[in-house]
Amino acid sequence: MCPPALIPYKPRNPKTRLSSLLSLEEREQFAAAMLEDVKVVVRDAMCSPVLVCTELFDSEDVQVTISDTDLNGSINAILPQNVGPTLIIMADLPLADTASIRRLLSTEKDLAIVPGRGGGTNAIFMKEPRKFHVDYYGTSFLKHMKIATDAGLSVEVIDSFRLHTDIDEPEDLVELLIHGTGKSRAFLEDLGFALSVDKGRVGVERKR
Amino acid sequence: MCPPALIPYKPRNPKTRLSSLLSLEEREQFAAAMLEDVKVVVRDAMCSPVLVCTELFDSEDVQVTISDTDLNGSINAILPQNVGPTLIIMADLPLADTASIRRLLSTEKDLAIVPGRGGGTNAIFMKEPRKFHVDYYGTSFLKHMKIATDAGLSVEVIDSFRLHTDIDEPEDLVELLIHGTGKSRAFLEDLGFALSVDKGRVGVERKR
Repeated sequence: MCPPALIPYKPRNPKTRLSSLLSLEEREQFAAAMLEDVKVVVRDAMCSPVLVCTELFDSEDVQVTISDTDLNGSINAILPQNVGPTLIIMADLPLADTASIRRLLSTEKDLAIVPGRGGGTNAIFMKEPRKFHVDYYGTSFLKHMKIATDAGLSVEVIDSFRLHTDIDEPEDLVELLIHGTGKSRAFLEDLGFALSVDKGRVGVERKR
Repeated sequence: MCPPALIPYKPRNPKTRLSSLLSLEEREQFAAAMLEDVKVVVRDAMCSPVLVCTELFDSEDVQVTISDTDLNGSINAILPQNVGPTLIIMADLPLADTASIRRLLSTEKDLAIVPGRGGGTNAIFMKEPRKFHVDYYGTSFLKHMKIATDAGLSVEVIDSFRLHTDIDEPEDLVELLIHGTGKSRAFLEDLGFALSVDKGRVGVERKR
């Protein structure tokens, strides 16, 4: 059984909150490297990645679904068509590892969810996707918990910092340089990024 | 078997990075509330809390060790005296729950460690504390991994956002208001703190 793993992906002008550190071209390459890391662990966990894009995008090795509506509209159009277990996972989770994905997939509840930092939702695994719908943005974690409860679905919250840590802000790069093992960490290091320690607090610096 | 849980604790002028939101007295009360939350889950996980303070402090219900050296000196004076398994856990982890502590305690390795956000170390469980020593501040997680490797100790990194999330900065309060269940969340709510959503991003606001 290879459940589909829906991965929302924005290829153009992604990660604008990293604009102080990375050029537009670098941000697009970095987003692509993070996506590669997520695809690798999703496949290792025996899922089939499917990119969900709201703009034209071509991929050599992954199925791509393109929709002209927003993230919620795109996902909510797909879920009712899926008869079997389905995963939704964000593309900016380069600390994800196979073990954490497996914890999601092996839930005994109807649904397993991973909160992101700041109230977001980083991953959802649904056994019956037709009974659920998504509502991203804002405190989506709390909204998704309520949607599940209202639908009579039992929920497990997966306690994983690897899946909790989405890479949005400059300070998040610290986490990637400490805990990352894949292409996106290597991409940052190739650009000259390294950890810096100033007065006991850890940040990143770009050396070239 | 009730392993000691060493909890470093600073009763006076704690959490200075929250000074923009909380008065000195409120910060001391908030730190005490977080400590209470940690003590509850540590006891539920069958550990015996021992406060490690570098200034005089009196507690009615917990053993207190007072040392006039710094955090590293205090802990490193205690570890060689402990013959059995020992836990070190920070006092500012109000999202800790019994399940996450049990994952630490049930490791099959010599040592289990939980990284904190920004390269810190939030908890360490040692089966043979005499073989280990701590080196906090800066990228202590990486330092502790190296100390363990140099000592020939096998290590498990525990993947828990509940133990990863230390409460230091104003934005960390978002996590507590979403995922907290104990006294420290109630303390914040009693002060008038609530979640706020502005342009899709989640923060906290103080209403009174």
